[in-house]
Amino acid sequence: MLDSTLKEDFLLTKIAFLGPAGTYGEEAALTYNPHAHLVPMPSHSAVMDAVDKHMADEGIVPIENSIEGSVNDTLDLLIHESRLQIKSEIVIPINHCVLAKQGTETKDIAVIYSHPQALGQCRRFVERVFPRVQTLASLSTTAAVEDMKKSSIPAAAIASSRAAELFGVAIVAKNVQDNPNNVTRFVVLSHIDAEPSGDDKTSIAFMFSEDKPGQLYGVLGEFARRGINLAKIESRPSKEALGKYVFLIDLNGHRKDKAVAETLHIVKNKSSMFKLFGSYPRRNF
Amino acid sequence: MLDSTLKEDFLLTKIAFLGPAGTYGEEAALTYNPHAHLVPMPSHSAVMDAVDKHMADEGIVPIENSIEGSVNDTLDLLIHESRLQIKSEIVIPINHCVLAKQGTETKDIAVIYSHPQALGQCRRFVERVFPRVQTLASLSTTAAVEDMKKSSIPAAAIASSRAAELFGVAIVAKNVQDNPNNVTRFVVLSHIDAEPSGDDKTSIAFMFSEDKPGQLYGVLGEFARRGINLAKIESRPSKEALGKYVFLIDLNGHRKDKAVAETLHIVKNKSSMFKLFGSYPRRNF
Repeated sequence: MLDSTLKEDFLLTKIAFLGPAGTYGEEAALTYNPHAHLVPMPSHSAVMDAVDKHMADEGIVPIENSIEGSVNDTLDLLIHESRLQIKSEIVIPINHCVLAKQGTETKDIAVIYSHPQALGQCRRFVERVFPRVQTLASLSTTAAVEDMKKSSIPAAAIASSRAAELFGVAIVAKNVQDNPNNVTRFVVLSHIDAEPSGDDKTSIAFMFSEDKPGQLYGVLGEFARRGINLAKIESRPSKEALGKYVFLIDLNGHRKDKAVAETLHIVKNKSSMFKLFGSYPRRNF
Repeated sequence: MLDSTLKEDFLLTKIAFLGPAGTYGEEAALTYNPHAHLVPMPSHSAVMDAVDKHMADEGIVPIENSIEGSVNDTLDLLIHESRLQIKSEIVIPINHCVLAKQGTETKDIAVIYSHPQALGQCRRFVERVFPRVQTLASLSTTAAVEDMKKSSIPAAAIASSRAAELFGVAIVAKNVQDNPNNVTRFVVLSHIDAEPSGDDKTSIAFMFSEDKPGQLYGVLGEFARRGINLAKIESRPSKEALGKYVFLIDLNGHRKDKAVAETLHIVKNKSSMFKLFGSYPRRNF
């Protein structure tokens, strides 16, 4: 017989995220479900695979950042590879910190490590506060902390406050991103999406086989005519040829709402590829 | 008096590109104007600055790849910072090669360096042909060749054939990208755009101040009504808040065409921000 701890562990929801511990993906997973059993994976496609193959019940991936825009990797996996559904969305503020080993004097810092996206998001801060410091690219904000710890010259890393905690290093400065409106939207993927909550969003992707003028306009008209508001419209390359695109739309409403169901049916008939990513409760941000 | 070589050099068009030599940006610049004086710059924003401050006459930046999609960095600079105009577009096939030092045995290769985008574009090839090899991220395909040359263990780099030539290393394999439809579209930036050629494209960006349903649909209707075809529609974050977007449209026609001029005027009046990136001859791809 299993002892009670093991049994409980066995019953916990398993959530796959882009590891290691200390990433913003882990923060999103903990915000979504603080009691989940977290399963770190090495890539976004591995997160989706883990759910697809039932190694995890749910997977969390970033889909959009308010400064950098869509996470193309995630969108392309949803379009071309995954069969998973979006069942929830979570928005996480990105608060970058400058971390250094205990006892490092700020004035001695000679290099700053971080992921290129994070370095970009803190560029003006670094130029102002660390004008003579060299910035070096790391593979993730967590990897940056490891690079900083290994550095033989006084170094800092830009990462989350949680990374400071996990690696036992000091926080030199907090909220150092140049733009205060820096948030990332994550989606929770599973085998089924969510039931109607009364205030939902639905995500779809579609493309047209031929390039005829006004096709996208025609599709948008189907939504406009029924008073369905679009929260987001986006295009990604079809990967077949330059100039051929897959369109992605987030619309307000649930796929089970009569007007939405009717429109999705029409859009599906008008397009050569149509994929429903699911309906899920809408967060206000 | 200047001697004739110097004089000629002085008269050559100066084109800024993302250096160092050997990048696909250099290839685009040479394809566009084989006689130009090329000015390597360290970043896309430096390329634009060089033109803005008259250090170069024109600048070449990548704007879109058929697999990876838009080059967000370039789009955001055009939206938020640059005052330059697009005067031409060039499409370059991306043919990645595996490069190694002369005399390196393929079977001995233990690591492969490249820019993460190039590694991504050759992922299946690497898994198939170099299943036990470690892949390592470099800052550019050119930097990957330098990293490979410095490696103490047998290494390879994924970069262009031109990089092989410039660095005097061997080409182990050619055209190793997984998707044969891998092309990058570059744009030529200058202080003025191009005169009508009879078959042109115009690029614009705009956003709405309030989030009212059907706004984008209304704008697309202005184009559809006048039979103006859209080559591309895209959204980028406004950077003000999640869920607020700048829309980018490439339309067929020149800003001096009557119907286009009329529509652009209406779109400008309907939007809270409007930016014309210029009109330029359309390439078929």
